[in-house]
Amino acid sequence: VTDRCIGIVGLGLIGGSLALALRRARPRWTLLGVDTDKETRAQALAAGAVHEATALAEASLSRCDAVVLAVPAPALVELIPVLAACMREGAVLTDVGGAKAEPCRAGASQSRVVFVGGHPMAGTEFRGFGAADAALFDGATVALCPPPAGAASAGAGTASNSGRSPALALVGEIWRAVGASKLLEVAPEAHDRAVTYASHVPYLAAAAVVECLRSAGDAEELARELAAGGFRDTTRLAGDGTVGGAASLNTFVPAAARALADTLRSLAAQLEEDPAAARKRLADLAEERRAMKLPVRRPGH
Amino acid sequence: VTDRCIGIVGLGLIGGSLALALRRARPRWTLLGVDTDKETRAQALAAGAVHEATALAEASLSRCDAVVLAVPAPALVELIPVLAACMREGAVLTDVGGAKAEPCRAGASQSRVVFVGGHPMAGTEFRGFGAADAALFDGATVALCPPPAGAASAGAGTASNSGRSPALALVGEIWRAVGASKLLEVAPEAHDRAVTYASHVPYLAAAAVVECLRSAGDAEELARELAAGGFRDTTRLAGDGTVGGAASLNTFVPAAARALADTLRSLAAQLEEDPAAARKRLADLAEERRAMKLPVRRPGH
Repeated sequence: VTDRCIGIVGLGLIGGSLALALRRARPRWTLLGVDTDKETRAQALAAGAVHEATALAEASLSRCDAVVLAVPAPALVELIPVLAACMREGAVLTDVGGAKAEPCRAGASQSRVVFVGGHPMAGTEFRGFGAADAALFDGATVALCPPPAGAASAGAGTASNSGRSPALALVGEIWRAVGASKLLEVAPEAHDRAVTYASHVPYLAAAAVVECLRSAGDAEELARELAAGGFRDTTRLAGDGTVGGAASLNTFVPAAARALADTLRSLAAQLEEDPAAARKRLADLAEERRAMKLPVRRPGH
Repeated sequence: VTDRCIGIVGLGLIGGSLALALRRARPRWTLLGVDTDKETRAQALAAGAVHEATALAEASLSRCDAVVLAVPAPALVELIPVLAACMREGAVLTDVGGAKAEPCRAGASQSRVVFVGGHPMAGTEFRGFGAADAALFDGATVALCPPPAGAASAGAGTASNSGRSPALALVGEIWRAVGASKLLEVAPEAHDRAVTYASHVPYLAAAAVVECLRSAGDAEELARELAAGGFRDTTRLAGDGTVGGAASLNTFVPAAARALADTLRSLAAQLEEDPAAARKRLADLAEERRAMKLPVRRPGH
């Protein structure tokens, strides 16, 4: 393992967890942390998560072999050209955003660094470095969007395409090091369509359930008293303050949210008109859900 | 503590957990288990959850001070008059169903026993006695619907209303014994309106998210690969095979499901027309969700 210098821009839940995990997995690598918040920088330094923690203007990103951009969307997209300009030619820039088409477009619109889109399928409903956890990515799937072969940025600063494979390998090495068990190479649009169903539709459903509770009028107070584990789990994702940003960048989301609305209207009509058929439909969905292979909840999460 | 004889009709997740917990908390009480499934009866006997386990036709429910009806809706409603006819006059019949208006109407339409509606706010996505857990009701809230004062069944077989308080007290004692930390006395309609938001709307949202994934076409396979903790938690409730029955009895559910659909349509439109406002709305909902006091997940659940 070559010693590397890695920049992590944004030391919140995801960036902070990545820093903690990478420090443990690759103790000889140098980690440069960047965050706008002074207290976050102090926390990350105190926890030994990074070797340096600065604001962006003071960061020496030109030292980095790779920079991981871990700020919420839509700021994430705007920072891509800014970071690329600060980095060494041919170095690797990657991100952790939940939507991939827009960041990858921004990455491809420059040729100084090689941009590899990334999206670790992991998170919690908590925010900030205080919630960071070196085990967050244990067993996670990470989607990676390398630049298309022949793209402007694919061979940035060197012969065409020559930077593509090493860049993908370095980003893959980072995620493997912190515990990811599966790396999926996908095109940005295919990613965004799939994540719509895997993540953004569940997220909007959770948020909408919370909003409905808030507008339950007379029933709200008792509903809050009766809310138990079912409500807690169904709405957990709604508490994630960063998914909304990714959802707003994902052009497939509005149509999928309307399809979800249509499904709910169809269930409502069936419950009124043919309750036995509605129960059968719900029982089939229950069986479908129980048969799904999903990551097991880790203790304490 | 007087020694009691309690019947439990339906030895699935809820009835089985109640039996296990009550055996532990009240070792001198006699528990008579009833289930249509022979294997379930054998399991419950082998686990020491009940003293006897029979089919309904062989059950000596006339020995019981109270019978807890723990079968899924809508069979639950149909069994109320059947069980009442087998029970001792003035004994207590209660249930665990997620909708209360219909069972309480059925309970009030006879005067042989005192019917107290019950709904423990606890469950898992697993089913059957094999999933039963003596700790399931630890810390749970239980909604109780006593018969209205002066109702036909309130003083069944004795002076008017005289059976109401002792019946409520006995049902409350059962739930306290198995770990419930809060008993909420509510009217059936108020319960059903509130549970619509606390449980049935989250449930339908979860089921609809699963159905949407199934109809994601080309994106379905990758979506399944990318589905992680967010999808798992949002849809957990969809795997509960019994909530659908209760939802189909709850007359407030269809309108609430349509309101949820409208909320999703409004989010979809805002994501397209004013993404910054949509992000603000979602961030407010995230804050709202994080501030909610909800039961803490117990280890292993």
